Amino acid sequence: MATQTLKRDEISNLSFILNKPHEVTYAERPKPTLSSPHDVIVAVNYTGICGSDVHYWNHGAIGHFVVKDPMVLGHESAGTVIEVGDEVAHLKVGDRVAIEPGYACRRCNDCRAGKYNLCEKMVFAATPPYDGTLTGLWKSPADFCYKLPESVSLQEGALIEPLAVAVHIVKQASVQPGQSVVVMGAGPVGLLCAAVAKAYGASKVVSVDIVQSKLDFAKDFASTHTYLSQRISPEENAKAIKEQVGLPKGADVVIDASGAEPSIQTSLHTVRMGGTYVQGGMGKSDITFPIMAMCLKEVTARGSFRYGPGDYELAVDLVGSGKVDIKKLVTTVVPFDKAEEAFKKVKEGEVIKILIAGPNEKI
Amino acid sequence: MATQTLKRDEISNLSFILNKPHEVTYAERPKPTLSSPHDVIVAVNYTGICGSDVHYWNHGAIGHFVVKDPMVLGHESAGTVIEVGDEVAHLKVGDRVAIEPGYACRRCNDCRAGKYNLCEKMVFAATPPYDGTLTGLWKSPADFCYKLPESVSLQEGALIEPLAVAVHIVKQASVQPGQSVVVMGAGPVGLLCAAVAKAYGASKVVSVDIVQSKLDFAKDFASTHTYLSQRISPEENAKAIKEQVGLPKGADVVIDASGAEPSIQTSLHTVRMGGTYVQGGMGKSDITFPIMAMCLKEVTARGSFRYGPGDYELAVDLVGSGKVDIKKLVTTVVPFDKAEEAFKKVKEGEVIKILIAGPNEKI
Amino acid sequence: MATQTLKRDEISNLSFILNKPHEVTYAERPKPTLSSPHDVIVAVNYTGICGSDVHYWNHGAIGHFVVKDPMVLGHESAGTVIEVGDEVAHLKVGDRVAIEPGYACRRCNDCRAGKYNLCEKMVFAATPPYDGTLTGLWKSPADFCYKLPESVSLQEGALIEPLAVAVHIVKQASVQPGQSVVVMGAGPVGLLCAAVAKAYGASKVVSVDIVQSKLDFAKDFASTHTYLSQRISPEENAKAIKEQVGLPKGADVVIDASGAEPSIQTSLHTVRMGGTYVQGGMGKSDITFPIMAMCLKEVTARGSFRYGPGDYELAVDLVGSGKVDIKKLVTTVVPFDKAEEAFKKVKEGEVIKILIAGPNEKI
Amino acid sequence: MATQTLKRDEISNLSFILNKPHEVTYAERPKPTLSSPHDVIVAVNYTGICGSDVHYWNHGAIGHFVVKDPMVLGHESAGTVIEVGDEVAHLKVGDRVAIEPGYACRRCNDCRAGKYNLCEKMVFAATPPYDGTLTGLWKSPADFCYKLPESVSLQEGALIEPLAVAVHIVKQASVQPGQSVVVMGAGPVGLLCAAVAKAYGASKVVSVDIVQSKLDFAKDFASTHTYLSQRISPEENAKAIKEQVGLPKGADVVIDASGAEPSIQTSLHTVRMGGTYVQGGMGKSDITFPIMAMCLKEVTARGSFRYGPGDYELAVDLVGSGKVDIKKLVTTVVPFDKAEEAFKKVKEGEVIKILIAGPNEKI
Repeated sequence: MATQTLKRDEISNLSFILNKPHEVTYAERPKPTLSSPHDVIVAVNYTGICGSDVHYWNHGAIGHFVVKDPMVLGHESAGTVIEVGDEVAHLKVGDRVAIEPGYACRRCNDCRAGKYNLCEKMVFAATPPYDGTLTGLWKSPADFCYKLPESVSLQEGALIEPLAVAVHIVKQASVQPGQSVVVMGAGPVGLLCAAVAKAYGASKVVSVDIVQSKLDFAKDFASTHTYLSQRISPEENAKAIKEQVGLPKGADVVIDASGAEPSIQTSLHTVRMGGTYVQGGMGKSDITFPIMAMCLKEVTARGSFRYGPGDYELAVDLVGSGKVDIKKLVTTVVPFDKAEEAFKKVKEGEVIKILIAGPNEKI
Repeated sequence: MATQTLKRDEISNLSFILNKPHEVTYAERPKPTLSSPHDVIVAVNYTGICGSDVHYWNHGAIGHFVVKDPMVLGHESAGTVIEVGDEVAHLKVGDRVAIEPGYACRRCNDCRAGKYNLCEKMVFAATPPYDGTLTGLWKSPADFCYKLPESVSLQEGALIEPLAVAVHIVKQASVQPGQSVVVMGAGPVGLLCAAVAKAYGASKVVSVDIVQSKLDFAKDFASTHTYLSQRISPEENAKAIKEQVGLPKGADVVIDASGAEPSIQTSLHTVRMGGTYVQGGMGKSDITFPIMAMCLKEVTARGSFRYGPGDYELAVDLVGSGKVDIKKLVTTVVPFDKAEEAFKKVKEGEVIKILIAGPNEKI
Repeated sequence: MATQTLKRDEISNLSFILNKPHEVTYAERPKPTLSSPHDVIVAVNYTGICGSDVHYWNHGAIGHFVVKDPMVLGHESAGTVIEVGDEVAHLKVGDRVAIEPGYACRRCNDCRAGKYNLCEKMVFAATPPYDGTLTGLWKSPADFCYKLPESVSLQEGALIEPLAVAVHIVKQASVQPGQSVVVMGAGPVGLLCAAVAKAYGASKVVSVDIVQSKLDFAKDFASTHTYLSQRISPEENAKAIKEQVGLPKGADVVIDASGAEPSIQTSLHTVRMGGTYVQGGMGKSDITFPIMAMCLKEVTARGSFRYGPGDYELAVDLVGSGKVDIKKLVTTVVPFDKAEEAFKKVKEGEVIKILIAGPNEKI
Repeated sequence: MATQTLKRDEISNLSFILNKPHEVTYAERPKPTLSSPHDVIVAVNYTGICGSDVHYWNHGAIGHFVVKDPMVLGHESAGTVIEVGDEVAHLKVGDRVAIEPGYACRRCNDCRAGKYNLCEKMVFAATPPYDGTLTGLWKSPADFCYKLPESVSLQEGALIEPLAVAVHIVKQASVQPGQSVVVMGAGPVGLLCAAVAKAYGASKVVSVDIVQSKLDFAKDFASTHTYLSQRISPEENAKAIKEQVGLPKGADVVIDASGAEPSIQTSLHTVRMGGTYVQGGMGKSDITFPIMAMCLKEVTARGSFRYGPGDYELAVDLVGSGKVDIKKLVTTVVPFDKAEEAFKKVKEGEVIKILIAGPNEKI
């Protein structure tokens, strides 16, 4: 039976909960109710697993975000609207939506200025102390749910979240048509950055990784060129990238989607004079960094954190228009009761993306 | 006798030449002649000494720029026009000008796109193998000489060059009225960055240094606040700056004009979420850098290299309008035959700015 | 007795109400109560009168905004906080604030993207059907009230609103230090645009009007140059402005703060190749416009509508720091029961700015 | 025999010359010689005809540009390099190039700032008093000739010029992926704007014209939607466009490539709050313009004039990568001695684009 036709009473709110590192449980949580006329309740159909989910499961913390109380995991989800508040105009019961899993205060200077991803009061799914979306029912402000067009499936909808991450990174890089873009790392976010850069009109999109099979996938997915990193200095790897790709002056844009120190160093040596480098991947807090390369080449370096206004809309549009064939990333889909196995598979690097069906979803 | 009334024949082209580290000579060099109808010949009146001049004198090289043949030093100069090419419309004999000491190819993509400071064919004074301006006569494309208004003296004119460096840094930082700007380092460039930031309308301009006397000067010159760096961690210094200045969320803009590793680290911890940090000072090629602070705060980091279109014009305007009282930086002026002593004084840190009169200038 | 010490029970909510053109009444309206923990209640101390208030009073409508039901007039106000909601952190009872009299839905794409002034659901004071601020008590989201520093009086605070209008216009114009800015019209908004442009570092600020006495005031207030418009063609007026001010290539920025057709035409002929023109003043819906001048000179033309994120904060900062001496604009202050006379004075052009004291304010 | 193998002596410099309106002659003109080591000589292979060429042929003038002396017509050309100056590095004899037919002074503020299309000293082909490219040999600064990749033919190369016009317009409009773009006019420039907007990632590209057959071509060429303008008011046409295309809030970007007064008016009513409108087409100097729509919707309006840094490179890239199938625009190709007939065909509106072979080109 399709989720769309389920009633509130028939829907389980079974949730996948992290108690402490490697200790997870399933429990039926109380069903959320509309607390604002601007909210909706969504039955979750599919949820992807992100590296940060696995990190919490593995370590119980990321930086100063520490899981102290049991927390529902997951934040890459799509679902089906089952209730709408009185003031909601753009959604109705039965609509299939991609869920933006973090909502902001709307009142601080960052929110008002259109930078809600920087809001200090952000409530973000599966970032302690807030519960995530590996659950049956999710309550959200309606404007953080994005209706999927008919051409986009709910499984694809679950991957709008990592695609929005990539959209934000590429926007931070101000990629322009005709430019050359090098993407360090060919994991999910790196692959999606490559695809988005191409959709932005980049002429050359170069994926760089240390694993040949990932590069093969990247070439098939979006990249025009690939480069297998060698055990040589960052300067030498940068020189080799530029030679092999035909970028004597360096790349217009370099995106690091790996978080790895040598990749970041290579990024700075690969970008051209006056070019742009964006740090999209997470890694060590402090690294050895070629600061004078940044200074003397007048590089614009930018961080990228989550996503902001317009990012989800564009991600949905890119999938709906066929510009990003996101379903290629899905290695497998498992039922809700196999969630823990799914986490293990991601940790082992056996999959690109694995989706976990919602507790009410038959697969 | 004023330089303005000198004829070509009466003007010495005596030059101050670096042969190898610490070995300098004076020699009368051949007088330049107009080789293009767009050129002018300028008799140099005053020249400031920059840290890079001293570095060449001391070490014979900066990075991969190595002094192999004898090279005239100096690049911060103002002078008086004594000859103009036929196509020159905006200058005439007798005009007093600030000299922009580097000119670009005008034909590469960077030049055409308005980024001539990034031109790979840049001819830059006192950067090997090109001679500098500690000489009697200087030939320049006319559009790289900027007429000084009556209210600006030739001594002030010699400092337009470092002021243009600061203008470029502040432009890279996109300082807006009402913002808070922290400047690491209270040497000449740091002081000028503070003054330019203030002219851009910054509400709070904070100078940071490890020398109290420099901070006292900064406070008198342009800064609204100062902070004496402590022997504590960068995070702790950043916290103290924010507390003392009243910037609980951090500074809108941080400019590093020191090049020192701890200052750069402190910069990243001082800038607010979504703020801008510009690396203006030169230092070690590679440093330990808080990359995740840059990433997660979505900082825009930029290098700054020399100056580009409009920077000299604005520098002249800032001095001419009284917004930057640049003459305060001049500690002393020495005659041409004391050039070597001047270099020693700069190296010893005895002066903020020292000016060397041109060989035809009586002082 | 100071408003600050008044209790809710002691405060009148007497309001100045427009029933239909030229028919106004005073009435005690119900006192507002906190309906959200993010709201505050403010006792209004002073209110300035804007041209739009007078237009409603005179005509009962502006464009498609028609006064159908009795409406409280006024939207340029400062007041004193008398109640704060539980979630309000930045304000407390007794704080003196400038009131931003329009708040937006916070949920539409424009709001989320930092363009809340474009919000279609904007609730704006004294724009039908919403009541204005010529009243005793005003309820507002706390983030639309801006605390005044000690150096700014409540009378100055009432003029933060028109100053924010000017700040927004100058931001739309992207005025940069050293630029030349021509402002058409020397009424309140034109005068404030000139002052803000100067605070942004403009080197030449030229006020243009058809009334010499207004230009004399402008010269004293902020402008570096003035030009009295002649009964000649827009091209000829533009030519004369450029000659008299010394702008052979035209002005970097032209702001029309008049709304008058000949001024707008002159604006396009005065702006330089590649320059910026902003339409800040309201006037006829359709005019004869030199479209090819805009096209062939590659002018950037922008509209400006009310104000957005950061504009009030900067306006308060500009007054607090003394950069804009806004109290000079206040011609006179009248008690609340003289409100109608005040409207007449504005209509007759007898004053620059007139302030009406709140019903609880003794003057 | 291919042009590539021709020697200078074997090449005719026969030129197509406008003496006065409707009076043209052919004459062998003196062959150009290299006057700078940065120049190249190009044998012209194909030249497209532009509306401005026809306008000069028809009227002898455009605005204040008046043909006083006989002038060679034509400026949309591709050719083959037959001589290169000593300093030219990126071109060699035999290279096939698109010719950018206007070069700038490189020394004025606009040139230095990367806005060379605004240079007052621009030397532009077939703009009096400068001769055009309907000739055998063309001398050009080498950096204004762009090498065609193998995948781009010389006939396509001749259309790089109008494509660069469209690229510049779309850049002025800052089109972003996912946006909706309405293009008024489906002539050559309008068609190319639609194609470039699509290459920039626009989701909806709407061509508007008064001729159904042009719209049919547009739909086949690049547009996702078309709208046949009706004999109704601009407001009504705008309303109909928005309804038919599904843009309830209006279009993100509107480009007028028609120059027609009703189209420009419709543009302003079609663009959304905060959107961008670019005037790309030439027409009457002064028109009735909905200025308050621009003001109150905070529209950014921009002119677009010719092309600047990077525009030709991107145009070549768009054709080379297959993103713009420019050869579809070529209705017919005629030999050089049929040039006058070609002008007549363009005037009569019988063709989209007609190419004239160079005098040395056998077809």
